[in-house]
Amino acid sequence: MDTATPGNAVHPALGALALPQPYLLFLGDTIEPGFAKTAFGLRDWARDKCIGEFACSPDAVSTGLPHMRPAAAHAKGARALVIGVANSGGVIPAHWRASLVEALAAGLDIVSGMHVRLASLPDLAEAAARFGRRLIDVRSPPATIPIATGRKRSGKRLLTVGTDCALGKKYSALAIARGMRARGLDVDFRATGQTGIMISGSGIPMDAVIADFAAGAAEMLSPDAAPDHWDVIEGQGSLFHPAYAGVSLALLHGSQPDMFIACHEAGRAAILGTPGFALPDLEEVIALTRTLGRRTNPAIRCGGVTINTARLSDEDAAILLDGEADRLGLPVADPMRGGPRFERLLDQCLAP
Amino acid sequence: MDTATPGNAVHPALGALALPQPYLLFLGDTIEPGFAKTAFGLRDWARDKCIGEFACSPDAVSTGLPHMRPAAAHAKGARALVIGVANSGGVIPAHWRASLVEALAAGLDIVSGMHVRLASLPDLAEAAARFGRRLIDVRSPPATIPIATGRKRSGKRLLTVGTDCALGKKYSALAIARGMRARGLDVDFRATGQTGIMISGSGIPMDAVIADFAAGAAEMLSPDAAPDHWDVIEGQGSLFHPAYAGVSLALLHGSQPDMFIACHEAGRAAILGTPGFALPDLEEVIALTRTLGRRTNPAIRCGGVTINTARLSDEDAAILLDGEADRLGLPVADPMRGGPRFERLLDQCLAP
Repeated sequence: MDTATPGNAVHPALGALALPQPYLLFLGDTIEPGFAKTAFGLRDWARDKCIGEFACSPDAVSTGLPHMRPAAAHAKGARALVIGVANSGGVIPAHWRASLVEALAAGLDIVSGMHVRLASLPDLAEAAARFGRRLIDVRSPPATIPIATGRKRSGKRLLTVGTDCALGKKYSALAIARGMRARGLDVDFRATGQTGIMISGSGIPMDAVIADFAAGAAEMLSPDAAPDHWDVIEGQGSLFHPAYAGVSLALLHGSQPDMFIACHEAGRAAILGTPGFALPDLEEVIALTRTLGRRTNPAIRCGGVTINTARLSDEDAAILLDGEADRLGLPVADPMRGGPRFERLLDQCLAP
Repeated sequence: MDTATPGNAVHPALGALALPQPYLLFLGDTIEPGFAKTAFGLRDWARDKCIGEFACSPDAVSTGLPHMRPAAAHAKGARALVIGVANSGGVIPAHWRASLVEALAAGLDIVSGMHVRLASLPDLAEAAARFGRRLIDVRSPPATIPIATGRKRSGKRLLTVGTDCALGKKYSALAIARGMRARGLDVDFRATGQTGIMISGSGIPMDAVIADFAAGAAEMLSPDAAPDHWDVIEGQGSLFHPAYAGVSLALLHGSQPDMFIACHEAGRAAILGTPGFALPDLEEVIALTRTLGRRTNPAIRCGGVTINTARLSDEDAAILLDGEADRLGLPVADPMRGGPRFERLLDQCLAP
């Protein structure tokens, strides 16, 4: 395994991050479940890579995984402690440090997606050096990313796109990859954000790549593969988001998807964080994704729509999903609800 | 003047680079005019900011400006030596160093757009510290760029877009800014690349900004202004370029232009550097720019087309420009040739 930037692990073929696994999930002293989304995401989507959980307060939230100290987790095979909680400042509070040093001393690397760089904390840097462990920030992209070439690669690719940020593109991609795998297909989930990278164990944080290299990063993320292999790529942002559309377009061009899924959240009407911008219609998202995606893959097709219906009753969700499927003439499903609607969406994605 | 990153100068209001001026142009020992484009660009577009030229070989190319040593240039008011030449490796050869140290000793800062960072060269870093001078890399973006908000700003904006990279977007913007100024308008040229930044004395190198902040950088570059003030913004890349479309879209969204000019080069048929990609038609560029630009400025309009006809005879250029104007129903001009065609393009840009 090569090392591109100090402390970060690089996949020898991809140049993408390759994280030490399995994990011990660190919950700090976080009592608010909303701040523990990374830990819950890892439990739900990478259960086989999670040995247990560890907190520094008895009042902390729990994932339901076995509670254990770092030494016990290491004895059971854990190779990294993952910081599974966020807090409003993105900082690592001083009262977490003893627990983190305990993990390093027990032989675990530390993996973080927080804003502060682990190695910038002198006590952690000193302990990591002393115990010969790594401090891995998943916000750090690979050191060497080529400029995109647009060359058509072998294998098949699916990208999730969206009407906005933060409404289900990652979970849609994870569910589609899981569904394809259940059908016996050869598939890789390709992560483009911090939580996705922790779940998959590799990937590239698209939001941290220099703009000129963003499409190149997407090309690097899904390399040539066998003709019947699928890369299911986690989307980022939205082509209609006034801050992030450039990232979304670079990811679309570099991914050169054969198939895309348009993702939406029931009831969301305005773009997050930018007052005055209405959400685009799903039809607009589908049409613009086709128009722009054709530049690097003239055969691009829409495989359907996913709608996050977490806030709706079962009955209301069913009415919405079926109504939208009729209106759009496409499979529409909530991947977290699964069922026949989601299987129809997979059928459409895999139709010749 | 605040300092954001060591050695770099930051405009107090914009956060964008603000370079020390006027300049002494350094030509090294470059004998190939094609490698001295920066020096020629500065002579042609920032003549009033150039005191003279300086080379370390009698055989070097010349801009025709007075030749003088750094001390003489400083006595005439020069405040920075600008490296006006490139070479294939983007490096600063050892035999240039004595000349650069002579400039620092004479009281000049050094401004470079080369790939290598000036401060990474120990002899230059040591000399800059000793003489209290700055080493300024125009490839370095401001340290703090906000996420774009999409908020509509006051004042008027024009952006140059293109069928490809490197075919005249910078010179079109410079010529339009000059033409507007000649008509008595209040106008700023807003630079987004290295040569443009050296010409204008400020700007943001869009190609070096982290992808998530690219639209924010464009917003920062053209802040609120008086209602009749024009920002003429240098475009980057192309919405059809498989490597750089994301940068182009971020720049379009963040610039929220009222007016855009589509730029092309006569005879160019394929995208530079990415084999297998045909150039888009001008109509496609105009239509897609309108479609995507509407997201942050519903009033966006096309002010015309510029075509780089440097390789054509006067007669062939006239036939091409007039033919394209008839075909597209828009003013079409070569800004380097100027004349009535270019004045018609300015008329169209300024029409209410």
